This record gives sequence, C-alpha cells and structure tokens, in this order.
Amino acid sequence: MNNFDFYSPTYFAFGKDREQDVGALIKRFGGTKVLIHYGGGSAPSGGSAPSGGSVVRSGLLDRVKASLDGAGVSWLALGGVKPNPRSGLVREGIELCRREGVDFVLAVGGGSTIDSSKAIAAGTVYDGDFWDFYSGKYIEKALPVGTVLTIAAAGSEGSPDSVITNEDGMFKRGATGDAIRPRFSILNPALTQTLPPYQTACGITDIMAHLYERYLTNTKEVEVTDRLIEALLLTMIHEGPRVIENPDNYEARANIMWAGMMAHNNSCGVGRSQDWNSHNIEHELSALYDCAHGAGLAVTMPAVFSYVMDHDVMRFAQVAARVWGCQMDFAHPEVTAKAGIEALRCFLKSIGMPGSLGELGGKAEDIPKLVDVLCNGDGRPGSITGFVTLNEDDCAAIYRMML
Amino acid sequence: MNNFDFYSPTYFAFGKDREQDVGALIKRFGGTKVLIHYGGGSAPSGGSAPSGGSVVRSGLLDRVKASLDGAGVSWLALGGVKPNPRSGLVREGIELCRREGVDFVLAVGGGSTIDSSKAIAAGTVYDGDFWDFYSGKYIEKALPVGTVLTIAAAGSEGSPDSVITNEDGMFKRGATGDAIRPRFSILNPALTQTLPPYQTACGITDIMAHLYERYLTNTKEVEVTDRLIEALLLTMIHEGPRVIENPDNYEARANIMWAGMMAHNNSCGVGRSQDWNSHNIEHELSALYDCAHGAGLAVTMPAVFSYVMDHDVMRFAQVAARVWGCQMDFAHPEVTAKAGIEALRCFLKSIGMPGSLGELGGKAEDIPKLVDVLCNGDGRPGSITGFVTLNEDDCAAIYRMML
Repeated sequence: MNNFDFYSPTYFAFGKDREQDVGALIKRFGGTKVLIHYGGGSAPSGGSAPSGGSVVRSGLLDRVKASLDGAGVSWLALGGVKPNPRSGLVREGIELCRREGVDFVLAVGGGSTIDSSKAIAAGTVYDGDFWDFYSGKYIEKALPVGTVLTIAAAGSEGSPDSVITNEDGMFKRGATGDAIRPRFSILNPALTQTLPPYQTACGITDIMAHLYERYLTNTKEVEVTDRLIEALLLTMIHEGPRVIENPDNYEARANIMWAGMMAHNNSCGVGRSQDWNSHNIEHELSALYDCAHGAGLAVTMPAVFSYVMDHDVMRFAQVAARVWGCQMDFAHPEVTAKAGIEALRCFLKSIGMPGSLGELGGKAEDIPKLVDVLCNGDGRPGSITGFVTLNEDDCAAIYRMML
Repeated sequence: MNNFDFYSPTYFAFGKDREQDVGALIKRFGGTKVLIHYGGGSAPSGGSAPSGGSVVRSGLLDRVKASLDGAGVSWLALGGVKPNPRSGLVREGIELCRREGVDFVLAVGGGSTIDSSKAIAAGTVYDGDFWDFYSGKYIEKALPVGTVLTIAAAGSEGSPDSVITNEDGMFKRGATGDAIRPRFSILNPALTQTLPPYQTACGITDIMAHLYERYLTNTKEVEVTDRLIEALLLTMIHEGPRVIENPDNYEARANIMWAGMMAHNNSCGVGRSQDWNSHNIEHELSALYDCAHGAGLAVTMPAVFSYVMDHDVMRFAQVAARVWGCQMDFAHPEVTAKAGIEALRCFLKSIGMPGSLGELGGKAEDIPKLVDVLCNGDGRPGSITGFVTLNEDDCAAIYRMML
C-alpha cells in the first residue's frame, strides 16, 4: 500500500427535510454573507436549457432562503448554472462575490452547481485568473463552500474537486484542493425523487465510474480498498434498477445518495494509483456535444475497459466474479474478465443509458478533433495516463470502438 | 434509512515513517505545549504490567519527541497507561495539564492510550469531575487530541469515543463527543509489526466486533451500510490469518490498520440503529478479570449472537452467506444463520483467540456479580439494550453459555 493522506472534514447532514438546517450550518461554519448559487433562474443567454429550474419550481430555493433569513444570515443569489458548467458564469460569480463582500458560497443543486461554486470560491480570493487552477495549480485558499445536493451523481458534495468547461475552446478541465471541500453538505434523498429516470441513470453511471476509476489500479495488495469499492458497486447494482422502476423509492434513493458521496470523497481510493482515463476521454464528449456526463461515461467505460483489459486480466476477472457474479473461469480468466465488462454494458443499457457515440450526437469525423484536444489540449504531452498510458492512436481506437 | 449526521474531520497520515510528521501536524492544528501520553514508563504501582513499554523500547517515543523538538513545539510526557485504562491516571493527567498550561494532548500508543488521552483532554477544560462524561454527559469541549497509533484494534484514532475503567468498583464506561475526535492520527502499519500474535489477534477481533455491532440493526433497507460492513469483514478474514502467519507482512498490516479505522469512525454505521450489547457484556469481563478486550469479545460474540439469532434470522443468514461463504439454505435460513456464527467462532479460534470464560480467568460464581454491574451499575435500569433488549436473566444465560 502506498503512503497516503486522507482528510474528509465535511459535515454531512443526511435525510428528510435537512435543508431546514442550512441557515444554522452556515452560521456554525462562520458564514455571514452568502452567495446562493444554483441552476436555472437568471441563466445567461444561449446554450442548452438550465437544468436547475427545478430548484426554483420545487420551492427548494425559497426554503433555503427562509432558513438563512431565520438564522439572520444575509444572502444574494446567482442562478444560471448549466450542466457542464461554464467559465463565463464563474467569472461573473467571482466579480459579484468581490463586489458584495461575500464570505460563504452555498451551492444548491447538483455537481455542476457545486463545481461552479467551488470555482467561484477559489477565484474570489485569488489574485490571478481562476483558470490557473484548472491548468494544474493546487487550490490553497478559497471562501468556505456549503452544499444542498439535489442529484446523486458527481460526488462533489464530499470531494476536493471541481470540473469546469472553458468556453474558449469548449474543453473541460479539473481543479483540486482541500480548501474547496465543502464545510457541510446537506443530502436529502427526497429532493432527488423528482429527477427523471434518464438523469437518475446518468447519476448512477457517474457514481459507478468513480468506483471503477479507483478499482483500476497498478498498486498491489490493497484488499481493503478493493472490497470497499465492490461494496458500493454492489449497492448501485441493487438499488439502481429499483429507483429506475420506482422513482419515489426513498430508501433506494437514500442508499444511492450516500454511496455517491462515499464513491468520491476518496474513502475508496486510498493507498494506491487510480485511473481516470474514462473520465478524461468522456470529458471531451460532454464538452463538445453537451451531453450528460453520465451518459458519456456509459458509452466510454465499456470501450476503455475492453481496450485496456489485457493490462491486468485478473483485476477485471476479480470485479466480474465479486461484483457481477460471473463464474470464475480459472483456466481462462480472460473469459470471466470479458463477461464482467459485458455485464456492466448490459446493466447500463437496462437503466436506460446510451450505448454508442451516435446516441450522444457524436460523429466519426469528430474523432481527430476529440483526440487532439484530449491528448494535446492545455499542455498535455500527446497522451493521457492512468491505469494505462494512452497515446493518440489508442484514444482514436477507443473513440472508434464507441461508434 | 434514518436521518443522520456524519462528521469525521480527522486528518489521517498513513504509511511508513509517518511519525516523522507529528511535529508539523501538531503545529498545523494549533498545539504549542503538548502532553505526550503513552503506555509503560512512569506507571503507577500495582495492577498488570504496562503494555506500552514497547513505545519506549522501540525508540518511537524518542522519534516523536525529536519531531516535536524539530518543529519547535514544547512538550512534557506522562506514561503509565495500562490496557483497560484507569480513572486514576486520567485524574493525574488532568491535574498535570492544568498546572503546566498544556494546549494539546498527543497519544502515542493503542486504544487504551488514546482513550485515556481523550479523557484527559475533556477533563482539563471541564469544571466538574471528568467521570460525568462517562455517566452520560456529552463532551462539548476538550483540548485538541492527536494520535500516533501502535495497534490496529480499537478504532479510537478516528472515533469520538473513549472507554475508561473506574477504579472505584472496577467497571468500564464510555463517553462520546465530537470534541474528542482526534485532529490528526498517524497510522504507520510498520509500528504494528512487532506486536505479538495474541495482541494482533485481539485487535482483529475488536475490529470485527465493531463491524458486527453495526451489522446488527433493526432498521430496514440500508444496503449501503450492510455492504460496507461486509467489505471490511471480508478484508479482516482475508488479512487476519496472513498477519498471524507472518507478523512482518506490511501489506496485510496496512489493510488491517485502515480497516480498523474505517470500522469505527462510523463510516459503516450511518442511518440505522446499532447493537453494542456484545461490547457492554464484554466490558464487565475485562474490567473484572483485566483480560484483553479483544479476547473477551471473542468469547462474548458467538454467545450473544446465538442467543439473539431468532430475533432476525435473515440478518444472520445474510452475513453467513455474503461474508462467510455459507450456502444459503432457502428452506431453512436458520441453518445458514447458525453456520455463520460457527464460522466466526472457528475463525477466532484459528487466529488464537480463547473460546470460553475459563480461558479468560472467569468463573461461574462470578456471573451474578457480572450481571448485576452490567444491568444495574451506574444507573442502568436492570437491562441493556441494542439489537435486542437483554434483562438480567438474559445476560446471566449469555454468560453461562460462555462457560
């Protein structure tokens, strides 16, 4: 096991009606003037429809404002976050926070809203351009961030990470730093009951990807991390179909919501190398086609896993046997390994996810451009690296496998 | 799933040589004058031999002191912690901290040392008698605590809990509060490589008990928590025999050490009722006979589980099938449930744990006294409660099953 540091100091308030506690939690963590950041509302013109209109329509935003008023915490609000959140709105938020002397950023929404809030929180107290953080600079300082989560998916509610799309070139990049870990996150599974099945399935896929990306390691003998990942994958496989069948199933929603947090606060990633090639390969898809990140991952993962399977057949056989219930073929482990990838593909299809690039709006002729931005964009060295290092030819082959 | 709050803000520094970072971590978390608390050394007279002499002999204490000196942090030291730590030493520590103006308590040792340190940290800033906390008062305030862990067992390095033996009557009681959660914990698995097999096995048993106590719940449909517990039990079953066979197996030690933390920071206990009857029943054994807590649990758990099995046969069948690999008998689930308890009993025996009260030094004639202190001591209402409520007759029957 590699040496590691693990630090997940976020306070989680989980369950029915917990958004009522938001005012008290902001006070507890020192906020006095809050930017409430959310989807929908005052959306900038252009692009796809804001996803977070439901935050307004459902009355959640009003309940949050009432809780802040009740706690005597002053606030202003900035809506307009879209899926695959954009750098332009981040800049607007930074300017607003500086002008108004905001000292706490509260995200009300899903991963996009939280990631946008984290970018604003880091950018507000930084002298340079916030995109520096999305070009590799570690985030040392930020305004405190809190979240009221409305979608189980990204895991941003418990992570030190943020992903933003740069509108100047339409590519996505990530930033990280303990300073942007939420001080608190409110997880009320009932808020996710109104999510349409497609978005629910996208969230399930994203959570499973966070687990698979940590499962694909080159570090030997970290059984505890293997087992924890398998536990959460088994949970998703059990609860996913139940919630697709019955969106009002609170218990299934609750299990998925907590698994989604655990899948990405790195509880399941300590002590070893991780992958993240699937995420990187997908990010170019959702940046270019503005498809849902989870839908992109559903297409990406089986292709990537099939392409890299030979790098460690026993690892793929292990997940196939332990998670997917495939019989181990001791004479031909590659048979079991392949069966596990096929089981994943079938599962994703069964919950309504797409299976090909075409279903995402992608075209074969875009592949050279996708590969170029992926492997060379923003200073990358002509390849991406993780479980396996993939050069431009590898990435082109993987995109072609998705056709 | 029940509503819950989850908060585990401890900073974990894990791996080889990490004790070198202790000075820097104390500075990071604001300590300027530190009480180093450890086993062995200036032990009060009487009782069993101090366990922590190895902290001195191995040179660990000197390395810790050197790191503090290097960071410019002043310190004083108080040794003498014994297994089943005593209230007398806690009082001594409180007095010392007040007299010397200590602002940070550093535990160097195992669960007993950490629990004693937590008691000192809480008592130092409390106007009344520290035992109030061990009689049910929640700990709201304490000096910050850090730990350098030397035994994978108690999970106190990541928990808000502490257990102390009151010398006035020789009974153990627990206290809790987020204020005594360690600010940081240093986990170097190599420090555990010198532990004798018996103590190692006691630690493994304690970790498994922390998991079982959380598995036995009356709350339905918390699949994610079931799965996480099963993951860590599977890890212990895999790594336990490896480390008993080869105490120098760093990788196995590392997996056990991290599983031990995860088993007790409540990652695996959210959203539902827990048990803790086995711990309560055992505490009277280690208080009266001064046996190792883990050894007491090895005798206690199979007896308790057999006694309460009928309360929820399917729960015991589930752990038998998923964790112990027992074939599910769909016509007679109680057969599978029983097989799982027997598998646990055999496993504990195989790693060298005792199987009867006699092996702990216990006697049948002590049972009335054990039951009385357990069910009526310190204001208890003639029973203990958890997965099942157990009255004096139940507890007497369980102790008799251990003979």
